[in-house]
Amino acid sequence: MYQQQIVIDGLQYCHWDREYFQTLKASGIHAVHATLVYHETARETLSRFAEWNLLFERNADLIMPVLSMADVEAAKAQGKVGIMFGAQNCSPIDDEIGLVEVMRRQGLLIMQLTYNNQSLLATGCYEQNDNGITRFGKQVVDEMNRVGMIIDMSHSAERSTLEAIDLSARPICISHANPTFAHDALRNKSDAVIKALTDRGGLLGFSLYPFHLPNGSQCTLEDFCQMVARTADMVGVEHLGIGSDLCLNQPQSVLEWMRNGRWSKVMDYGEGSSSNAGWPDALPWFSGSRGMENIYNGLIKTGFSEAEAGQIIGGNWFEFLQSGLQPAE
Amino acid sequence: MYQQQIVIDGLQYCHWDREYFQTLKASGIHAVHATLVYHETARETLSRFAEWNLLFERNADLIMPVLSMADVEAAKAQGKVGIMFGAQNCSPIDDEIGLVEVMRRQGLLIMQLTYNNQSLLATGCYEQNDNGITRFGKQVVDEMNRVGMIIDMSHSAERSTLEAIDLSARPICISHANPTFAHDALRNKSDAVIKALTDRGGLLGFSLYPFHLPNGSQCTLEDFCQMVARTADMVGVEHLGIGSDLCLNQPQSVLEWMRNGRWSKVMDYGEGSSSNAGWPDALPWFSGSRGMENIYNGLIKTGFSEAEAGQIIGGNWFEFLQSGLQPAE
Repeated sequence: MYQQQIVIDGLQYCHWDREYFQTLKASGIHAVHATLVYHETARETLSRFAEWNLLFERNADLIMPVLSMADVEAAKAQGKVGIMFGAQNCSPIDDEIGLVEVMRRQGLLIMQLTYNNQSLLATGCYEQNDNGITRFGKQVVDEMNRVGMIIDMSHSAERSTLEAIDLSARPICISHANPTFAHDALRNKSDAVIKALTDRGGLLGFSLYPFHLPNGSQCTLEDFCQMVARTADMVGVEHLGIGSDLCLNQPQSVLEWMRNGRWSKVMDYGEGSSSNAGWPDALPWFSGSRGMENIYNGLIKTGFSEAEAGQIIGGNWFEFLQSGLQPAE
Repeated sequence: MYQQQIVIDGLQYCHWDREYFQTLKASGIHAVHATLVYHETARETLSRFAEWNLLFERNADLIMPVLSMADVEAAKAQGKVGIMFGAQNCSPIDDEIGLVEVMRRQGLLIMQLTYNNQSLLATGCYEQNDNGITRFGKQVVDEMNRVGMIIDMSHSAERSTLEAIDLSARPICISHANPTFAHDALRNKSDAVIKALTDRGGLLGFSLYPFHLPNGSQCTLEDFCQMVARTADMVGVEHLGIGSDLCLNQPQSVLEWMRNGRWSKVMDYGEGSSSNAGWPDALPWFSGSRGMENIYNGLIKTGFSEAEAGQIIGGNWFEFLQSGLQPAE
């Protein structure tokens, strides 16, 4: 039964307010990986933490911060939603290795090494040339391993991703992307990447963002579950989760910040285009508060057992994070 | 016996290196309130935390960070020195109320509302006019109360100090200063301040910085202990501790940063003068590793019981911090 599972969404970037926290709670989600920043510097990241602290203070009956998986268990027990912070880019550490530990203590549990573009650490998936992990990047990978901050390569280019998997002493994740076999997009991942990731104990979170899906906003629940099933056939169930990339109730300005940050003088449309510049339409079967339950039921209809469907909607994320968030021995 | 006490120095700003950590450990000190910053902004404060994290990593056999008094007990049990961070000025929160909680989570346990000059929160002891606690200051006092960050008024002016004592719902401290009855200096505190502070459960840490002492660097152990005894007669033993203000092995540049920060185009000599611009000579009986033990023995010679001397060299700080560092209910 869905209600008996531990349910974790491995990536959301919604407009966070009380109404949405009520939706989250009603959805049965126990923890959500919430994007804290896209392009914010270290200093700006502190303000984002401060804003969230105010949300925690004002919505203490609905949400709580997660610093370890014990907090997720506490959230489940108390009927709250645990918030796990991640950065979609490495901007929170500026150019300073020591900020990895500082940000980890503050509660940044997950960090992408790059967001679409070249960063100080690695190459993003929209660059023409991928030089792999940089000198600074190698030190940051080691430091993230040491302090127990999860490496996320969702928006990284192929070579950089393979090198991160290889260089990291601990399993990494691709929190929100889909296999290119289902939909060929720069943001999706090749079989080679998915195999290397999971061979090393890493986790792939399937995305519900229409640009990552076959048939975009018309993708059916059945198509989605078939994609999961084919991936499970390839690499096993235990490495799969959900990272919905759900971006609800956000204005166009947030989409433009995601795509353009401060780096572009001309409008960059990311996965969209000048004639399709807005947010994609949400999937009808993954909106409101029934999305995760719909996926759970869809997976069972596709042939997964209840236990397997439970692993995919949260159990695998829980195990992966429980291990990965601990400091190295 | 000295070895049975819990020993806490309520303020030091030494040059922190392995050699000095060995001295600290040999001194029998279990925890020290270490100044993290004087005038650093929020962003710069992160770098100071990062530098300390490297010290913790490289000297894990000698020191450990303190986030609560359970860590001080652990340090004592493991034969290590616990490091408790404080800021001598409110610069780490910039102009942002939410940074109080952010800095507290990072490990900033104690913060002065001002350092000698007017700050955004209060007036420093070197200003000609003292306007008391500012609008922002009142909110910060409430927020520090809420998250369990200790208010320290060591370098603040009289009216601001009295207002902070009054406005704060929880006891505050003057971590390092002496009574003006012993030595009349702008940095020392009137009987009115000391009585108001301790009436509300606050703590006064006696300073060993020569500029705060009768006869400066010639102050004898006996003179020091007489000052403590007279204060105890006035307000009781349970509100007294040591905040030595020990600044060993620091170059002149650090003294100038303390005194001038970025605010002065002409050299400000603080408690010194153009003809006496350097660090004062340390007290012979409070240098090396025997300082706290000397004070303990001197207090007993002055008439304190072993239990009372133990309270003064650390027990009172422990009780005060154990209560004050907890978040408000």
